[in-house]
Amino acid sequence: MELRELAGTLGEWLRGDGPQCGIVISTRVRLARNMAGYPFLRRLTDDQRADIRERVSQAGSELDLITAPCLIDLGATSHMDRQFLVERHLISRELAAGEGPRAVLFSGSETESLMINEEDHLRIQVMRSGLQIDEAWRQAGDLDDRLETKLDFAFSSRLGYLTACPTNVGTGLRASVMMHLPALVITRQIEKVFQAIARMRLAVRGLYGEGTQAAGDFYQVSNQVTLGKTEEEILETLSLTIPRIIQYEEKARETLARESEIFIEDRIWRAVGLLSRARQISSGEATSLLSAVRMGLHMGRLRGLDVQHINRLFIGSQPGHLQVRHGGELSPEERDVERARFVRSVLKDVDLN
Amino acid sequence: MELRELAGTLGEWLRGDGPQCGIVISTRVRLARNMAGYPFLRRLTDDQRADIRERVSQAGSELDLITAPCLIDLGATSHMDRQFLVERHLISRELAAGEGPRAVLFSGSETESLMINEEDHLRIQVMRSGLQIDEAWRQAGDLDDRLETKLDFAFSSRLGYLTACPTNVGTGLRASVMMHLPALVITRQIEKVFQAIARMRLAVRGLYGEGTQAAGDFYQVSNQVTLGKTEEEILETLSLTIPRIIQYEEKARETLARESEIFIEDRIWRAVGLLSRARQISSGEATSLLSAVRMGLHMGRLRGLDVQHINRLFIGSQPGHLQVRHGGELSPEERDVERARFVRSVLKDVDLN
Repeated sequence: MELRELAGTLGEWLRGDGPQCGIVISTRVRLARNMAGYPFLRRLTDDQRADIRERVSQAGSELDLITAPCLIDLGATSHMDRQFLVERHLISRELAAGEGPRAVLFSGSETESLMINEEDHLRIQVMRSGLQIDEAWRQAGDLDDRLETKLDFAFSSRLGYLTACPTNVGTGLRASVMMHLPALVITRQIEKVFQAIARMRLAVRGLYGEGTQAAGDFYQVSNQVTLGKTEEEILETLSLTIPRIIQYEEKARETLARESEIFIEDRIWRAVGLLSRARQISSGEATSLLSAVRMGLHMGRLRGLDVQHINRLFIGSQPGHLQVRHGGELSPEERDVERARFVRSVLKDVDLN
Repeated sequence: MELRELAGTLGEWLRGDGPQCGIVISTRVRLARNMAGYPFLRRLTDDQRADIRERVSQAGSELDLITAPCLIDLGATSHMDRQFLVERHLISRELAAGEGPRAVLFSGSETESLMINEEDHLRIQVMRSGLQIDEAWRQAGDLDDRLETKLDFAFSSRLGYLTACPTNVGTGLRASVMMHLPALVITRQIEKVFQAIARMRLAVRGLYGEGTQAAGDFYQVSNQVTLGKTEEEILETLSLTIPRIIQYEEKARETLARESEIFIEDRIWRAVGLLSRARQISSGEATSLLSAVRMGLHMGRLRGLDVQHINRLFIGSQPGHLQVRHGGELSPEERDVERARFVRSVLKDVDLN
């Protein structure tokens, strides 16, 4: 499997056609699972890790669990390739940075992914475009049920699923919704929204999970509680909160369109101008400019461009994608030049007037 | 005479085709003269000022001094129109801000201009495109000689021409060269060049003369000495110094092209991107972006655009020009929107790729 073939495509979560796709990029549900009879990951020998990797991938294959599956042995991949997989959200940063036998098995549509020997023995992940919490949960639950017919997961009747980190014990469930909130940032309401989110015992993170900074007004909102509630109860808080954040963002966009039309048009079109013309562009600047363009698109201020252009630019200008497409490592300066070239090449054929 | 008709045209000094036009925008020579038998301007009554205005304009007309002449009574113009004339360098900021009977008489090509009742009774000015110190001086001297056949100028055999401000006594001559020095600014060599200029007893000023800031890397270099030397001696220092500054700027551009190609291309093309797309743009930002585009043009990095496009954008986006073209006063915010609209309209039909 050549990652290069993937570089020009968009996973399902970036197709931009899900519910509420103007504000919600994607929904992700993951379940943390560990195999009974083995210590947690940190105490596993390499042989045991390899054993788990084999058992999980074999179960997946026997169950015909995943459509058009792709299995990648991460111990045998380059740093560049792992970065590429992180950018597509097919693996976590932790799995990329890990050591020893570990792997990822994902579907051709990139909707489903099984991370093997991440923080837990197994992370079952479903990513979907737009706001699809229930659908993603059903799909992840289904994968989990089917895997449990072949694998014995560590489970306590008192605590629920046992996990390497206590914050995941119980359901092992984390659902997160990636939102694009530029108008709340511009109107300086985002901090208030974060406070409200924290009161609901939900967490806000940047684009690539824990410890990453929010770039270009993209935020992940997810549950913190995994224990003492059913999966449905956990998801309910998120399902009730996200639509309210969407409403705030919509209201802020309406206010901007009404009261700051020139300011907002200027911001959108300057971003278009810079993206179409710059000769070097950092990852952070590209994300921030694409954020403005995405907002412009969904506010009906840009014609000739669709959300898939933006998503192609967005994912394609990440460092790993640039390097995989280029076919080798690039220095940060070379990446900035390559990124600008890539963005220009995509926008060249777009009639934006 | 409708100033609006001028708004879309370029005076000779902005035609961009003079010698050394990659770095020298224009050359200006002015002679300060006062009428014998009258006090200096500050002590003149309005009747005396009107008298001088009539005598000078009549002399000009009888001598058929100026081709396609245009006489503007500045006491009868709006602030907006005077600002427009300042932006075209047809009148000085001092004449614009003055009071009482005062006027300007200029030629259709805008090469020659007689300012009446500025700081002195008469300022004879010649503006030419590119580096043309000798030509401008010859032309100004010729105007002066011909006027002297009709008018009696205040002259002391010991001091030379008498002027309101002692810094102009003697020849009454100021020659200034407007230079575009972006590469010296980028490579941080401009201060060193300024120090060298000061050692030559030359002065450096911004775009619109004394007390104005240099905008967009445009600088006026002029003589400070007017007394105790002949006109030719005064001009010689300038004539020897300007080519050396040009050489420094050329060398700095070559260094940039060789050592910072991406940086410089990025700067040029970002400027193009912003100018073609922004929805509001301040005068300072426009000047600074046009400076980058002008440098790009003369460094051979831009096709499809010529220096007249840039000069049209440059002069046309000045506040007075925007308002005269619009047909009335605009608030600063409205001007920023109008400026962006104007710049886009000029660049729309330019194929820059």
